[in-house]
Amino acid sequence: MGENATTHHTNSANNGANDNQIGFKSRVSVIGSGRWGSVAAKLVAFNTLNLSSFHDEVKMWVFEETLQSGEKLTDAINRTNENVKYLPGIKLGKNVIADPDLDNAVKDANMLVFVTPHQFIDNICKSLVGKVRSDAEAISLIKGMEVKIEGPCLISTYISEQLGINCSVLMGANLANEIAEEKFSEATVGYRNNREIAEQWVQLFTTPYFMVTPVQDVEGVELCGTLKNVVAIAAGFVDGLDMGNNTKAAIIRFGLREMREFCKLLFSSVKDDTFFESCGVADVITTCFGGRNRKVAEAFARNGGKRSFDELEAEMLQGQKLQGVTTVREVYEVLRHRGLLELFPLFATVHEICSGCLPPSAIVIYSEKKNIFPV
Amino acid sequence: MGENATTHHTNSANNGANDNQIGFKSRVSVIGSGRWGSVAAKLVAFNTLNLSSFHDEVKMWVFEETLQSGEKLTDAINRTNENVKYLPGIKLGKNVIADPDLDNAVKDANMLVFVTPHQFIDNICKSLVGKVRSDAEAISLIKGMEVKIEGPCLISTYISEQLGINCSVLMGANLANEIAEEKFSEATVGYRNNREIAEQWVQLFTTPYFMVTPVQDVEGVELCGTLKNVVAIAAGFVDGLDMGNNTKAAIIRFGLREMREFCKLLFSSVKDDTFFESCGVADVITTCFGGRNRKVAEAFARNGGKRSFDELEAEMLQGQKLQGVTTVREVYEVLRHRGLLELFPLFATVHEICSGCLPPSAIVIYSEKKNIFPV
Repeated sequence: MGENATTHHTNSANNGANDNQIGFKSRVSVIGSGRWGSVAAKLVAFNTLNLSSFHDEVKMWVFEETLQSGEKLTDAINRTNENVKYLPGIKLGKNVIADPDLDNAVKDANMLVFVTPHQFIDNICKSLVGKVRSDAEAISLIKGMEVKIEGPCLISTYISEQLGINCSVLMGANLANEIAEEKFSEATVGYRNNREIAEQWVQLFTTPYFMVTPVQDVEGVELCGTLKNVVAIAAGFVDGLDMGNNTKAAIIRFGLREMREFCKLLFSSVKDDTFFESCGVADVITTCFGGRNRKVAEAFARNGGKRSFDELEAEMLQGQKLQGVTTVREVYEVLRHRGLLELFPLFATVHEICSGCLPPSAIVIYSEKKNIFPV
Repeated sequence: MGENATTHHTNSANNGANDNQIGFKSRVSVIGSGRWGSVAAKLVAFNTLNLSSFHDEVKMWVFEETLQSGEKLTDAINRTNENVKYLPGIKLGKNVIADPDLDNAVKDANMLVFVTPHQFIDNICKSLVGKVRSDAEAISLIKGMEVKIEGPCLISTYISEQLGINCSVLMGANLANEIAEEKFSEATVGYRNNREIAEQWVQLFTTPYFMVTPVQDVEGVELCGTLKNVVAIAAGFVDGLDMGNNTKAAIIRFGLREMREFCKLLFSSVKDDTFFESCGVADVITTCFGGRNRKVAEAFARNGGKRSFDELEAEMLQGQKLQGVTTVREVYEVLRHRGLLELFPLFATVHEICSGCLPPSAIVIYSEKKNIFPV
């Protein structure tokens, strides 16, 4: 429980939106300090300095590492105001304070920004149980999902359930290095019920070069951020097969449509319009023309599927794993379990290519053979 | 009036869909023989050979030219079965017969495929008045519109009104040279009322490598094919300014949304789903990453707007004109006339950049300044 908690508990109907109370200032913690986490801290820190409803200071939880120089990463960040390891050359704002102690980093915060790699969220949430303010609001910038056979569990739902707090999401066409350089881009905040909360997140992330739009569709926004990586793998295959622009555009469109149908299958509340937002069509475009999923999939296809994704990832990604390959396996399992694989020929074919059951050229042949898109 | 017309006039309720009558075979004419016209003839000729409901022969009206060799273009096409000038190296099918006489090319046809450059359609239609079968059906593959101050007149509407026949459209992510090489791609048929007619067009164009989907939204499909060129110019500016992937994806998304809103403004019947079809998002992607509008706009931005579009077109396009520059001027006039420019900041800004009123960098600044997309 945070030190200020007693002053806010009266306003229970407001679901944690305490910062409109006179004199109350929101405190923000960013949980995660990779490239995207560091950029998120930079965006947020710009705004907490300029908006009177926020404390200036932004805590950033850093998974502590010792640099080659012998210095701790947190010390280096606090000394130089740069994440020297994951985002060198970019000033984060002097009000960003790196903290290696997770409990300490979150204890006062009523706004928690989750931006760790997908695979760490499970342990982080478990260790945070009972440690965050009960009136805190969370937002997840994490791509991926926890898949169980009965269906995927969204990261935002997982955070919500583990910590007993509401969780929104922020997704979009956001290559982190371009935002770090302050090139214009935009993102979508997906929120559940409370428009006021959504507007606080919008305020916290919006800068002159970063435009944020709120959408009341947390599931649609979050699933877009996850499923786009599957479409990017399909697009990478098309690139590797030198099929040209028409084919790539067709495959991207099929992918976008399967994304939409898959989202609606899991959550009937998902809105068509979400796919016109930055998290939808824009992020799909960015990911299918840049991004590592596309790149490794292209290499996979150029090698005729003879070198596995594991092998290519190890060679091309310095230990990072491709989200898309994992996601499409999980999607495939969900669809198989429900007997719906035939309705999602692109997703099914991507998985069957990734797992070596079909050659990369199947990405086009499935379209040619069926010749009717069944959704 | 065609020689077979008397046998079909009984079926007036069928709105020209006579080819289901026993023993009746549709006759197809392609009006136009540029690159896209030649590819269209190739697609159609493949199907008329294989489908019993069509006469094998496909007439292709060719604007006669004398080649450097002294041979007439029509003779060369009929001798080699290739359009040696506009699509060399690609066999059209032996059942494609080039004809320099427009009246003769259309007189027996009950299915007319219009695929000429935009600027020729006016004269062609005028000279065809009273010459086509009254039960003929038309389809337009032409991008562009006839703009009057009260709003744009679609090419399909123009053909319909001039010739007194129904006109559908076919649009999509269709770089002609890639289809000529039989690389997989897809397109959208937009039709007005008669699903049977739409299915005949689908049948006539579908091949194992060319997938066609019918959509009952002729205005939406046709306007997509026109407006995408405006978005491509915006995308080209972003490329020329080296703004990166996020910015480009954002600008494409804004463009797609203004396309949708502009279409709905002109025709309330336009459907959101049309923008998920090949004519929508897929064609926008193809055009914003390939295509000449993007290319010249990139050059324009790299030169800081100091060399005019006219000058760059002359240098880069061998006498072809950019559709997008004309279209966006027409769109701008429509919006200005209706007092709606503020609702379409991307379209407005593109025109103001093209016409030299704003520098190319305004394409991003408009977003940064307004920071809220008003549609």
